[in-house]
Amino acid sequence: MKVDVNCDYGESYGIYRISDNEKILDYATSLNVACGFHGGDPVVMDMTVKKALEKGVAVGAHPGYPDLMGFGRRHIKLSHYEAKAYMKYQIGALKGFVESYGGKLQHVKPHGALYNDAAKDYELAYAIAEAVYEIDKDLIFFGISNQKTIEAAKKIGLKTANEVFADREYNDDGTLVSRSIKNSVITNKDRCVDRVIKMIKYNYVETINSKKIDIIPDTICVHGDNEKSLELIKSIRENLEKTGIEIISFNKRLD
Amino acid sequence: MKVDVNCDYGESYGIYRISDNEKILDYATSLNVACGFHGGDPVVMDMTVKKALEKGVAVGAHPGYPDLMGFGRRHIKLSHYEAKAYMKYQIGALKGFVESYGGKLQHVKPHGALYNDAAKDYELAYAIAEAVYEIDKDLIFFGISNQKTIEAAKKIGLKTANEVFADREYNDDGTLVSRSIKNSVITNKDRCVDRVIKMIKYNYVETINSKKIDIIPDTICVHGDNEKSLELIKSIRENLEKTGIEIISFNKRLD
Amino acid sequence: MKVDVNCDYGESYGIYRISDNEKILDYATSLNVACGFHGGDPVVMDMTVKKALEKGVAVGAHPGYPDLMGFGRRHIKLSHYEAKAYMKYQIGALKGFVESYGGKLQHVKPHGALYNDAAKDYELAYAIAEAVYEIDKDLIFFGISNQKTIEAAKKIGLKTANEVFADREYNDDGTLVSRSIKNSVITNKDRCVDRVIKMIKYNYVETINSKKIDIIPDTICVHGDNEKSLELIKSIRENLEKTGIEIISFNKRLD
Amino acid sequence: MKVDVNCDYGESYGIYRISDNEKILDYATSLNVACGFHGGDPVVMDMTVKKALEKGVAVGAHPGYPDLMGFGRRHIKLSHYEAKAYMKYQIGALKGFVESYGGKLQHVKPHGALYNDAAKDYELAYAIAEAVYEIDKDLIFFGISNQKTIEAAKKIGLKTANEVFADREYNDDGTLVSRSIKNSVITNKDRCVDRVIKMIKYNYVETINSKKIDIIPDTICVHGDNEKSLELIKSIRENLEKTGIEIISFNKRLD
Repeated sequence: MKVDVNCDYGESYGIYRISDNEKILDYATSLNVACGFHGGDPVVMDMTVKKALEKGVAVGAHPGYPDLMGFGRRHIKLSHYEAKAYMKYQIGALKGFVESYGGKLQHVKPHGALYNDAAKDYELAYAIAEAVYEIDKDLIFFGISNQKTIEAAKKIGLKTANEVFADREYNDDGTLVSRSIKNSVITNKDRCVDRVIKMIKYNYVETINSKKIDIIPDTICVHGDNEKSLELIKSIRENLEKTGIEIISFNKRLD
Repeated sequence: MKVDVNCDYGESYGIYRISDNEKILDYATSLNVACGFHGGDPVVMDMTVKKALEKGVAVGAHPGYPDLMGFGRRHIKLSHYEAKAYMKYQIGALKGFVESYGGKLQHVKPHGALYNDAAKDYELAYAIAEAVYEIDKDLIFFGISNQKTIEAAKKIGLKTANEVFADREYNDDGTLVSRSIKNSVITNKDRCVDRVIKMIKYNYVETINSKKIDIIPDTICVHGDNEKSLELIKSIRENLEKTGIEIISFNKRLD
Repeated sequence: MKVDVNCDYGESYGIYRISDNEKILDYATSLNVACGFHGGDPVVMDMTVKKALEKGVAVGAHPGYPDLMGFGRRHIKLSHYEAKAYMKYQIGALKGFVESYGGKLQHVKPHGALYNDAAKDYELAYAIAEAVYEIDKDLIFFGISNQKTIEAAKKIGLKTANEVFADREYNDDGTLVSRSIKNSVITNKDRCVDRVIKMIKYNYVETINSKKIDIIPDTICVHGDNEKSLELIKSIRENLEKTGIEIISFNKRLD
Repeated sequence: MKVDVNCDYGESYGIYRISDNEKILDYATSLNVACGFHGGDPVVMDMTVKKALEKGVAVGAHPGYPDLMGFGRRHIKLSHYEAKAYMKYQIGALKGFVESYGGKLQHVKPHGALYNDAAKDYELAYAIAEAVYEIDKDLIFFGISNQKTIEAAKKIGLKTANEVFADREYNDDGTLVSRSIKNSVITNKDRCVDRVIKMIKYNYVETINSKKIDIIPDTICVHGDNEKSLELIKSIRENLEKTGIEIISFNKRLD
């Protein structure tokens, strides 16, 4: 049994610093690097990619809506062609940095509102998955487990990674319970660890209504912007390893 | 005797349209495509690259300072590392579009104030030439004939294209006479054609002070944004061909 | 009987030019001047305001979503507080230019997707009307006749101007038939003129389904970006004047 | 003897947080609030202005170059007309927020590279001082003591505030020793306090070459982004008050 652990990274902009705890590079196996539209700037991208490759962490693009002021968290009603072109632009830009250091871009994970919109809108998901495929058909597309993003990416012929969340409650349809709803974020570390192990061993998760639903845990999403989240990752890793689950990025798995 | 004819292209932004006369694609052999910082947006870039490749015109990146409001024509005092990272970002982004259509990026030509600044500042020129090299060491770097840009690019090991201007007066040091000076732009079509032929045949140009200086005409810069400039290109092409000079892009020359 | 004629203006950005036909200043009585978020930049705003005041045309702010790449035509899901703050910023900026030339800002008309969203969403309309009121409670708020924008603005205590469209078909609920639907734009000049006169004299308009609905024609929206639209305005003005309807801006009406 | 204490504030952008320690509002008498070009966004501006007015701290505009990615710290070669228009836009926008809460904008202090450029370039200083005057001739213009900014502002007829720095070494010509030079920032708190008192009592400062030069301390620039700088302000305030120097903002002084 193998699983990837991914983390958003490189979302600073100019002098504005955010969430780049270097320690996370010791625990995550895949990094989602911001591409300049919702966060990240060319200098940040260059430094982030260089550091990640030095540490041996796999690098992916983390493209978002063109909305720095809203950090890509606000829905923008784009045409599918616009969404596709915005993806191509951002993925191409990050791919350039990765290749300039002799690396290979591993994956693409949409950010924020684009991630959520694509999970529910097959046409949008298809458009952005096309962008990924056309930039490089070997890229792995990350999307929330069992939703439209994965469905569209598969249709196009992309390799996909079903993403699961350790510390978030699920609705019965497999979507995440909104952060605006009380107790949607699980703060008990042991419960998070237990959930993840069950996802990996038995491929199910218990929803907020105590229903068991199917889930595919190819990659676990973690955050590294505070000490508490770092401890959660550490604990997840340790417990997974104890259980005999290997934590490994996709590009290594494929070697 | 062979020469390339290059033209800036794809500088529209959103609904704002600029200078994209499709007829120019019948006369230019290399296009410098804006990359989103001074002009161009992902949709424009996608459409431009697709059209250029269909027409068989070679595509290059045309990166500029991050200044849409000033169209990249205003000097910004960047650190060399910033300049390099901004170049990598823009070139990578355009390269992605080109490769998504099965093409190959041919060259890089800096835009506006960045073009002019690099011509005079070896350190800046070196930084941006490094960016080109690190993205893809086979890219050809376009810079004004015999100035710092070319010197730095050669030092790094890049192939270079010395650029000449058909309708602009030169200073004795090989730089262009500023547009703000009277008669700096040559409006007599025959004189432009005659100058270009002399550049190619005898490798010199007569400066505004009637001095003959050495010039290397690897590629001629033309514009396509009005009927008059289109006529100039047409006339240059016809007369060059009559003289037995072949007009051909670099990637074809190398085949 | 009196009516105002308003026109969007000053939507250029940097070297990108759009729709600023000076002749329109002879026909429109109120200008909606872009404020930098969807179009317009400080230099354009300064020049536009100066010119409008010289010509004696009343100046209003034309704030939009922060989306230059989409020209403010794409819905962005803002919080009400964000929408309100974005309005205050843009109106304040334009008001500064107007007052710097000794003028007085007359009105505010939201642009593009923000205009359409507010017409249907009372909460959003209320938030942006609050912004107008807090910047200057004497500003007149322009919105499509009889929709949520006007309702919210009245509730807050603002003066309002019900806007009507000469060349657009209406749905039975008073909204405009989408441009994407065939024949939604009326191209017959005489029919446009006839409709406007009926709106002003009898306060009704015939919808696309031939139903007569109430309409309040405080201000007529016109465009000035091509010769045909200029002719339409000219014809509307001439025919209104023949019918004894006075064309006058609000600030003059109030004197 | 009276002096003002000013502090930059409201430079956050979207989710990016910077330097807004609320405690500073207990020590500073004038706030320089970012206006969206180098930092600050409409929501941040709205919240900052509201908070400052509640606390009774005088609010000024802190306009900068249009360069969020460089935080306004990089020189951009603008025309004087561009610089003037960019100032009018930003001051107008902030003035709108201040007036929407019933306040009155007190002053304008240019930010970063624009502050430094104007100190040395009379023409640029004149252009931006004109912008201030045209927006509101009662605004106070803040500039480094005895340099071009103050000279130009006086010529135009603006009230000015000569700004001094407690913790920075001066060159013999009254400019600041660059941060890139060793020991240019004074870390000894007592020495800072002692310098400020001498500036106010005797109107001189000792330069890095131990020369005494004239200085006019209308307002002292402080920072509030870390605990150490907060302690410095606290110490300056306490010691000034002990010496019988009153700390008061300009608008209160004028009452």
